[in-house]
Amino acid sequence: MTQCTAFGVCEAHAELAPMRIERRALRADDVAIEIAYCGICHTDAHYLHNDWGSSKYPLVPGHEIVGHVTAIGDAVTRHKVGDRVAVGCLVDSCQHCAPCEEGEEQNCIAGPTPTYNGRDRQSGEPTHGGYSEHIVVREKFVLRVPEALDMRYAGPLLCAGITVWTPLRRYGIGKGSKVAVVGLGGLGHMAVKLASALGAEVTVITSSPGKADDARALGARHVLLSNDPASMKARFSHFDFILDTIPTRHDVNPYLMLLGRDGVLVLVGALESLEPIHGALLMVNNRSIAGSLMGGLSATQELLDFCADHEVLPECEMVGVHDINKAFARMKANDVKYRFVIDMSSMKDVNTP
Amino acid sequence: MTQCTAFGVCEAHAELAPMRIERRALRADDVAIEIAYCGICHTDAHYLHNDWGSSKYPLVPGHEIVGHVTAIGDAVTRHKVGDRVAVGCLVDSCQHCAPCEEGEEQNCIAGPTPTYNGRDRQSGEPTHGGYSEHIVVREKFVLRVPEALDMRYAGPLLCAGITVWTPLRRYGIGKGSKVAVVGLGGLGHMAVKLASALGAEVTVITSSPGKADDARALGARHVLLSNDPASMKARFSHFDFILDTIPTRHDVNPYLMLLGRDGVLVLVGALESLEPIHGALLMVNNRSIAGSLMGGLSATQELLDFCADHEVLPECEMVGVHDINKAFARMKANDVKYRFVIDMSSMKDVNTP
Repeated sequence: MTQCTAFGVCEAHAELAPMRIERRALRADDVAIEIAYCGICHTDAHYLHNDWGSSKYPLVPGHEIVGHVTAIGDAVTRHKVGDRVAVGCLVDSCQHCAPCEEGEEQNCIAGPTPTYNGRDRQSGEPTHGGYSEHIVVREKFVLRVPEALDMRYAGPLLCAGITVWTPLRRYGIGKGSKVAVVGLGGLGHMAVKLASALGAEVTVITSSPGKADDARALGARHVLLSNDPASMKARFSHFDFILDTIPTRHDVNPYLMLLGRDGVLVLVGALESLEPIHGALLMVNNRSIAGSLMGGLSATQELLDFCADHEVLPECEMVGVHDINKAFARMKANDVKYRFVIDMSSMKDVNTP
Repeated sequence: MTQCTAFGVCEAHAELAPMRIERRALRADDVAIEIAYCGICHTDAHYLHNDWGSSKYPLVPGHEIVGHVTAIGDAVTRHKVGDRVAVGCLVDSCQHCAPCEEGEEQNCIAGPTPTYNGRDRQSGEPTHGGYSEHIVVREKFVLRVPEALDMRYAGPLLCAGITVWTPLRRYGIGKGSKVAVVGLGGLGHMAVKLASALGAEVTVITSSPGKADDARALGARHVLLSNDPASMKARFSHFDFILDTIPTRHDVNPYLMLLGRDGVLVLVGALESLEPIHGALLMVNNRSIAGSLMGGLSATQELLDFCADHEVLPECEMVGVHDINKAFARMKANDVKYRFVIDMSSMKDVNTP
């Protein structure tokens, strides 16, 4: 057991504050990581505020973790001290069920172990996330950060990135695909970049004309104003694939109408109920609505490698730990383009109680 | 032009009554058919009552047509006088767009010509359906009825049958597939028979314990009571494919929970809005909801051939034309197992005004 400094909360709605947490002694297949950067995800805010009723305190968020290996267990073969590595939303899974064997650890039937707010499968101890100096993670769940990938920007690939990458790959998006992205936040801006890098013709659908320049700067070929009926009508039955990143209840019917034959709309944001869907809109053109949740380890490694090869990086604003609470307030106000990343070197000045 | 006797209505909500209609003179690529049998579909009732606001009167329903060729146009090569043939929901389409070229005439971009309540693409004259003695149809839209298929029962394959066949084939249902069917009416009973014949393990989901014996007699291996929470819970994440034939607004969330990884629920009945869907239920297991609408000509021929080869037939109750209005009343009261078919030989006793 070693102690380290972290930022967390001891109750819902509290401000993030420094605390000391324990990291387990290395098991044979463990990797110890000094964290260099950690992205701030909307999910972190949901857990801090116990929005889903499942938060356990004390709670240390953070599942977009990038750092360097400082020590390895006796049986570790894939990583060595000094390696650039990353940890995403999961730190363990059963490794035996069909989803695990097929590289979809996020769908582990026994339930995967989340990077924070979970319980270690062996000791039952709480898992704590990346708003901290160090973390200890099972080798299998530690990813390589390619040399060509700027470590400062790699963090958001591990949640926002993989969440949109998984459906883009599942549905074979590439050259010739007509893709629309709804919602231009952390997930949406990565969807625009990744779909464009895959060769698709990307349209951003937004109700804000003011986002058009940003959308094009991210790689979108077109911008479609959802509140302009004539423009929407001109795109009826046009798209092969719509990635819907809106995180709250909304009406997907206007987007369904834009899907061509066999077109699919994939939800990656809305964890709540949608406005009623019209069955006839699905029957015409054999359209479908699918959901997608994060991604497995091999897909996440594929994404990191793809981003290194294609020079795709999230748009990030770096913050120090002292500004974490300000960053959460700005994120709540949608005042971020497009992801905050905590520079963990700022942790060295922190005094813990 | 030739005249023939038909059953139709001149205004919404009228009772079906005999009338004289005209059938066009044969064009070079036309086939004239003497109708032997015609199935009664729920859609017929919707059009008779102008439920969708698009009915044009006088209206002669019927799109599950089976009969014999009585004459052919000069350029017809695929059918000859005396052949056993069938006509389904469509009698024409543009034949040039991508869906038409790929055998999905039901998705013709210019809009296919429906068998009734449509307009002939050349003359603009109204199309009239199969509640009549004769029909004239473009050769391409006339299907072969295999010798091994009992003509009395072939009609319902042309709408109820193809509507469920298309998604079963699209999603590769076969040996090893765990399929559930929701709703045991005209469409649902065909889905049970066809999915079973394809080798799938079929479960009927119903709220009526009284339907269990019928479901098993149709080929279902299991019956799941939707109002028994313990039974439903025991099938969480169990199915690969759910065919939802419920024709009215309903809640699909309880069924979504039953879908395993990459599982899909296909709507073939509900042309209206559904109860709100929970996004999280789609994200878990990467589930999806799709719609499907009828099927193309080659798929319909495939279905007729499959049913002949596998001895699959709809369950039909034969009625004479004099009992048409009684049959509609009983269909409205769900008092039919599972499809009415009009025996058109009863038409010879009809006196038309």
